Amino acid sequence: MLAIKIIEKKRDKYPLTSDEINFFLNNYLNGNIPDYQMSALLMAIYFNGLNQEELFHFTNSMINSGELIKINNSEKFLIDKHSTGGVGDKTTIALVGLFGCFGIGEIKLSGKSLGHTGGTVDKFESIPNFKFPENKNQMIDMVNKIGSGIMGYSDKIVPLDKKIYALRDVTGTIESISLIASSIMSKKLAITSNGIILDIKVGSGAFMKNIEDAKELSQSMMNIGKNFGRKIVGVLTDMEQPLGFAVGNANEVIEAIETLKGNGPKDFSLLVNTIIGIGLLMAGKAQNIDEGKLLCENMIKTGKPIEHFKKFLEYTGGNPKITEDYSLLPMAKNKLEFKSKKEGYISQIQAENIGRATMIIGAGRSKIEDSIDYGVGINLTKKIGDKVNKGDILAVIQYNDDKNIPDSLRLLEEAYVFSDKKIPERDVIIEIQM
Amino acid sequence: MLAIKIIEKKRDKYPLTSDEINFFLNNYLNGNIPDYQMSALLMAIYFNGLNQEELFHFTNSMINSGELIKINNSEKFLIDKHSTGGVGDKTTIALVGLFGCFGIGEIKLSGKSLGHTGGTVDKFESIPNFKFPENKNQMIDMVNKIGSGIMGYSDKIVPLDKKIYALRDVTGTIESISLIASSIMSKKLAITSNGIILDIKVGSGAFMKNIEDAKELSQSMMNIGKNFGRKIVGVLTDMEQPLGFAVGNANEVIEAIETLKGNGPKDFSLLVNTIIGIGLLMAGKAQNIDEGKLLCENMIKTGKPIEHFKKFLEYTGGNPKITEDYSLLPMAKNKLEFKSKKEGYISQIQAENIGRATMIIGAGRSKIEDSIDYGVGINLTKKIGDKVNKGDILAVIQYNDDKNIPDSLRLLEEAYVFSDKKIPERDVIIEIQM
Repeated sequence: MLAIKIIEKKRDKYPLTSDEINFFLNNYLNGNIPDYQMSALLMAIYFNGLNQEELFHFTNSMINSGELIKINNSEKFLIDKHSTGGVGDKTTIALVGLFGCFGIGEIKLSGKSLGHTGGTVDKFESIPNFKFPENKNQMIDMVNKIGSGIMGYSDKIVPLDKKIYALRDVTGTIESISLIASSIMSKKLAITSNGIILDIKVGSGAFMKNIEDAKELSQSMMNIGKNFGRKIVGVLTDMEQPLGFAVGNANEVIEAIETLKGNGPKDFSLLVNTIIGIGLLMAGKAQNIDEGKLLCENMIKTGKPIEHFKKFLEYTGGNPKITEDYSLLPMAKNKLEFKSKKEGYISQIQAENIGRATMIIGAGRSKIEDSIDYGVGINLTKKIGDKVNKGDILAVIQYNDDKNIPDSLRLLEEAYVFSDKKIPERDVIIEIQM
Repeated sequence: MLAIKIIEKKRDKYPLTSDEINFFLNNYLNGNIPDYQMSALLMAIYFNGLNQEELFHFTNSMINSGELIKINNSEKFLIDKHSTGGVGDKTTIALVGLFGCFGIGEIKLSGKSLGHTGGTVDKFESIPNFKFPENKNQMIDMVNKIGSGIMGYSDKIVPLDKKIYALRDVTGTIESISLIASSIMSKKLAITSNGIILDIKVGSGAFMKNIEDAKELSQSMMNIGKNFGRKIVGVLTDMEQPLGFAVGNANEVIEAIETLKGNGPKDFSLLVNTIIGIGLLMAGKAQNIDEGKLLCENMIKTGKPIEHFKKFLEYTGGNPKITEDYSLLPMAKNKLEFKSKKEGYISQIQAENIGRATMIIGAGRSKIEDSIDYGVGINLTKKIGDKVNKGDILAVIQYNDDKNIPDSLRLLEEAYVFSDKKIPERDVIIEIQM
């Protein structure tokens, strides 16, 4: 079998066989096929895509490039919720407390922040002494002890994805639905779960800028999941503005805890509620999503979700008292109010700008090696549809170093668009695909 | 400027600027841009092509990657005739004798055989003691002394093409009209000439399998030439069967000499005649191609073309007596007649098969490092349209080593298709584009 023939076949739109895909990917992983042939194949895939069968084999080859995390825990229904990345997305933090109340385990590998999007790993690590499992055995132990298992990405799980992603990143081949789908799904399928929920963000602050692309990605990932025999649901959610009010790390943890207490922002609370509803339906604990949502609302009123979240923190070494005393979390020294120079109804809050404004004051990374200042962040006070007068506070910046404050303010300034006419608030849930 | 942004731009169908093209190609040549980014760009170009302006800048950047061969010779009209490669193509050998009679210089870099196609360099080198100029100064001296200048490809002329071609060869990006056009034209434009004639072979034995692709390639190359202010004409010629009867090296030299003496095969003689006709029109020595062809026919009758060819041989060290005594050329020890097992009119002689049948007995190279056995070859006795009876000789194989004779015979067997009905002979000239 020759690498060049496989590249030419994909270039000429012929589907690749299981053997051809395995040959190419395995030989790339072990270094027999060089980067320049892989980048040519990736660009051909960018243009011609992979059909369902090819995607199955491509994803399978990725999964088998490393260790599998096999969890033998028949008591718990395990759900892996994945978000394609957005601004202000603290969903995983809230879910771990809520799912636990229903005997459902949240199970997943989480990512770090990069660019304008935040990372669940950084948000959890803003909690003093919080420590993720370091390997699959520790993660399996976590599931067995507290029901849920969350850790950061490991080089041992799907190492081929890491190698291919690094190449895609410098060869213009990130934006391929087929490659995104197989990359995400390989990391979901390498871990035991009973159900997968995909939160596909759509809008200016998301990777998928329009609904058509988001639907295609969702369908592609769902097909892969189903071909591997997994239960899987896709939720398209709005990322035309940040999710909730808090964007940063420690401030997002606070917002997630408040949501568990029933005091969360409307859009974020609805998202959490919907995902729990879907999870309860998947686990056979609700007849439909609406019943699941109602069960979730009632559960929040009992106060149990906070108790479950505390148990999770105890296991990880994080101080459970942060749920009552937010001053135990890192907090930046300085506060700056960002006020409106205009009046009207807010018609846009460009999420990517808010993400970048937060990243450059230290809450995120522009490069993988950057370090995070957990206590900095931006707390919005208004959302799309709100009426604003000149001088009203739109956001509060918490910061330590004022070096990038002028740039951060400029990004905020550019993020907001106002309208004379009343603007409806945005629906966070766009569509559920089952 | 970032390589990744340039790749993404081409991938997304936006035209690249002159600066972007120069940045990418120059940095690739000096090693700052790695192979894996170039292969991604090449595959994006394969899919989205280069427009006329991009092709101009791309070709210009290629030309300027190395030395230029500047010839200051106002007496001679210099013509660079290029063939896209075929089986039995000894045109350059015949032209050098003929053009010389009209005070026109044939000027070009010639290639070596690879795969099923022959190479002009090997054919000339089958002449004992023949030696090409080794560098541009020797080539310029050749032009000044005998009017024509022919040498093999040099690493110093358009080195970027060599580097990019080697990468294209292993990344499935050979078959791009834009990349083929800029590759060929960069090597034409790096040398002074007053006119360029492109012989674009079309058919099963050629790189371009159909007329549409051949026309597109011809137009693309002609646009580049014209944008650089060169006179340029494209001729689409038939490669559904080998050109002439002789396929090999020394045997092709003999056929070229016979053609200069007026005894050439019909198709090959017409091709030579037409190219000379075009050349005379370009040089202002004929009013139209037909007048030029007539001048050529008459010139052959004078015997001068052979005298000019002898002068060319004398300069290169080759023995001029080969023009009268072919036994001075290398000749394989053994002969094998390939006879027809069928009867009827020949409807196909797959040129690629004949090329491969000749290559594997030693006349060509399957790999660049293979050596050539100059005296071996295949001489056809029939062409498409000829009537054949069972047992008639279709070809004679001249060989030294019988190791690959069975495979060679099998390839020949598969090359011929017969028809019960009369089949017209094929026109060698398909179309002239000016």
